[in-house]
Amino acid sequence: MRVGHVGLAARRMSAEEAAELILPDMAVGMSGFTGAGYPKAIPGALAKRITQAHERGEDFSVRVLTGASTAPELDGVLARSGGIGFRLPYQSDPDLRARINDGRIEYMDIHLGHVAQYAYYGFLGKVDMAVVEVTGILPDGRLIPSTSVGNNPAWLDLADKVILEVNQRQPMSLEGMHDIYQAPLAPPHRQPIPLLNPGDRIGEPYFYCDPSKIVAVVETDTPDRMTSFTPPDEGSKMIAGHLVEFFRHEIRKGRLGEHLLPLQSGVGNIANAVLDGLKDAGFGKLTAYTEVIQDAMLELVGEGIITVASATAVSLSESAVDEFMDRIDYYRSRVILRQQSISNHAELIRRLGCIAMNGLVEADIYGNVNSTHVAGTSIINGIGGSGDFARNGFLSCFMTPSTAKNGAISCIVPMVSHVDHTEHDVAVLVTEQGLADLRGLSPKQRANVVIGNCAHPDYRPMLQDYFDRAFRDSQGKHTPHLLNEAYAWHQRYLGTGTMKF
Amino acid sequence: MRVGHVGLAARRMSAEEAAELILPDMAVGMSGFTGAGYPKAIPGALAKRITQAHERGEDFSVRVLTGASTAPELDGVLARSGGIGFRLPYQSDPDLRARINDGRIEYMDIHLGHVAQYAYYGFLGKVDMAVVEVTGILPDGRLIPSTSVGNNPAWLDLADKVILEVNQRQPMSLEGMHDIYQAPLAPPHRQPIPLLNPGDRIGEPYFYCDPSKIVAVVETDTPDRMTSFTPPDEGSKMIAGHLVEFFRHEIRKGRLGEHLLPLQSGVGNIANAVLDGLKDAGFGKLTAYTEVIQDAMLELVGEGIITVASATAVSLSESAVDEFMDRIDYYRSRVILRQQSISNHAELIRRLGCIAMNGLVEADIYGNVNSTHVAGTSIINGIGGSGDFARNGFLSCFMTPSTAKNGAISCIVPMVSHVDHTEHDVAVLVTEQGLADLRGLSPKQRANVVIGNCAHPDYRPMLQDYFDRAFRDSQGKHTPHLLNEAYAWHQRYLGTGTMKF
Repeated sequence: MRVGHVGLAARRMSAEEAAELILPDMAVGMSGFTGAGYPKAIPGALAKRITQAHERGEDFSVRVLTGASTAPELDGVLARSGGIGFRLPYQSDPDLRARINDGRIEYMDIHLGHVAQYAYYGFLGKVDMAVVEVTGILPDGRLIPSTSVGNNPAWLDLADKVILEVNQRQPMSLEGMHDIYQAPLAPPHRQPIPLLNPGDRIGEPYFYCDPSKIVAVVETDTPDRMTSFTPPDEGSKMIAGHLVEFFRHEIRKGRLGEHLLPLQSGVGNIANAVLDGLKDAGFGKLTAYTEVIQDAMLELVGEGIITVASATAVSLSESAVDEFMDRIDYYRSRVILRQQSISNHAELIRRLGCIAMNGLVEADIYGNVNSTHVAGTSIINGIGGSGDFARNGFLSCFMTPSTAKNGAISCIVPMVSHVDHTEHDVAVLVTEQGLADLRGLSPKQRANVVIGNCAHPDYRPMLQDYFDRAFRDSQGKHTPHLLNEAYAWHQRYLGTGTMKF
Repeated sequence: MRVGHVGLAARRMSAEEAAELILPDMAVGMSGFTGAGYPKAIPGALAKRITQAHERGEDFSVRVLTGASTAPELDGVLARSGGIGFRLPYQSDPDLRARINDGRIEYMDIHLGHVAQYAYYGFLGKVDMAVVEVTGILPDGRLIPSTSVGNNPAWLDLADKVILEVNQRQPMSLEGMHDIYQAPLAPPHRQPIPLLNPGDRIGEPYFYCDPSKIVAVVETDTPDRMTSFTPPDEGSKMIAGHLVEFFRHEIRKGRLGEHLLPLQSGVGNIANAVLDGLKDAGFGKLTAYTEVIQDAMLELVGEGIITVASATAVSLSESAVDEFMDRIDYYRSRVILRQQSISNHAELIRRLGCIAMNGLVEADIYGNVNSTHVAGTSIINGIGGSGDFARNGFLSCFMTPSTAKNGAISCIVPMVSHVDHTEHDVAVLVTEQGLADLRGLSPKQRANVVIGNCAHPDYRPMLQDYFDRAFRDSQGKHTPHLLNEAYAWHQRYLGTGTMKF
């Protein structure tokens, strides 16, 4: 019996009936973080309703606020219906992305750790409706969270009305894995957050939501989108190898302890491959304070190499889901899922001293990083939490293959076409070619190691040539640039399909 | 008797003798923050030594690490001697700046709140020598800090050897104004910093330094560089007016309380003018949690409008220094000077919810801010603490006249030539033309308000034309840009002396 609360059981209805409660121009706070714990039924029903309204010639769009990326059943179906007027934060759905980049959807790319804070402050406007997937409802009305926590506490707090999806497919054994922290959120009344270690529990494993606000309960039985990871390729293994070697070097120099510091790892194949590389590196008693637990991190926890992992979502492949469910009691004592305002909180990331490891789109020779845009104009996914961790962590590492599109693109460029992480916030850059340690260096010194250690040999002479001519001809020689050429590589790629001459 | 400690009194010597202890290639951590509390005598004596070595054909340069900008007696004289090989962080000396921009000095521009942390981590290399100005030395060896605290606790801790300048000109009545917090600085052993209000005292009013490390004590009697401020001009008053009106609007909307939140204010005339504007705005019981107390903030404290101001330095004009000294007992109970790793700490700025108000060099239509570079290549001063506050505060406001150089430069451009604050970290942009509230907006929505509210009428049609054509022709329409034109305005200025056609 997933809906234990008598009053709420009486509010069970179909997704179609519940979707009728969502009106045009509403701001809807939805659950969902990297394909985990998103509502499975309401968005599709809403999309149908929107499509019908459009067929009748009526305007109908909503503002969609989530935790991060979701799945085709949410972002995909709503984007295709033309019903998303505004969307934040991180997204990764192809249909949604296409409509953002053709100018039809307004998208705000915001640090994942800032969303709830800004919503509470009132900076993001009113939240009319929350649509949140949960695992179950206890008789007293407390809610068992699902496979992601995301911004759910904020949406449940702030929304005028709430629709719950109770997903039978999420195992009841998730109960107890979550840690939901309630604190006075607005200054000047803030207190220190009493979290000193990644494994600390500082809250309760349930959401609380005034049942009188809950206008509908919809039962579903659908698995999360499951992400499959490509096995680490040679390049990813080399990136992992450089990073492992660097960590060993830092331990020898006394700048890191043998158990490192809490690891944060971005999403995707490269991040997954780097964690995979840590598996065989001989490290032990590691911890993670991160956003998402993907396959490789689960494996590190499963093998006891990571003793505790704190995150806001579990986003696994099908086989990893099986492993996770088979040993759920083991994992429940080692995995903690928190709201993203805590998993990505500046205070905690700074205090714990996280080692941030994130992917990028392109970096420039001076260490500026573009995490979001192709050629300065098209968004890929968004900044995610990379800024939360790179800005306030112990060490901000960014990793990428040195080239993309079979070598047609150099991921190291003269000047990035969009800046998500400034020169002030990037400590280490890694490609399969090598690692550039940018700590304590001036821009010109950085250019030297980035070109020498990270650039692909095909592009290294071109970068060196740019730098040399910029140093010779640039008006200012602190950060030498040729403004008429800074984006020539991007323009060449757009024109000819390659950054090469 | 300023040197109360018997052992240290025996180590008194001339600046020339003390400068002999500084050897080539040493990294020297010096006191000094915005022209306050910097060593007055040793740098000049060191510069002479360096000049003599150069005349003998010997290499001699040092790495100079400070709190922030200093004065001609430190950065100026050392830069002219050719003796600075590397310098961090913020600087503002014309001779130093010229040598950074002609490529002779390597300069690292780092967030002021990160310097001590990175130094303790070992990321900035070894610190060989500290040269720190103090007000006096107590019989038990405790040191009374001077008019700035800056990174002094870190330099005193980390340096192998220490030279103290005891400046008779700094009033002994400064004793008790400082709050120096000692904490385990490296993770994983960190605890929450127990500061809940700007006025909290969490440490001791003295530095501690092992007397056996102190190799020289030099007595000086020289005032700080005193900065004079230009009286607020019409434009500055209009900027202040827009900001005051915005704060009132936020109070009406319930997003700010009537006493606002702790104010942070950047350095310079505009920041000073904005604080001046707050004076007559009818606000009361305000607080400040900031880096530097300049004239206008002192006046707000003096008139009781700001009840308590926390900073790391007091940087005043000559007349304000008189006022400060005349009523030092009044100010000592209302002004707290902390090390800059605490005044600019992510955890505290986030907890307190600072309202960040900083100047800029240029902003672009999408809300990216350049705080440091002219035309992407020449550094002006550095990022200072603007990133510490903009990134983790409650509200990040940036302000600038809409044009510079008598209208030849638009401070609102299609694309900034250097990014110090990304689109993700800029909430409010203000010029004398008006205020753009960027919260909760997509890039295109931001462009609309930035062009409409902030740009100068002379440049507004040019910006609108760029945006319209970019939206039409850009490959991606999330952040529309024409890469071949993005820096055309800067190039035109470099070529013709104006950004106008």
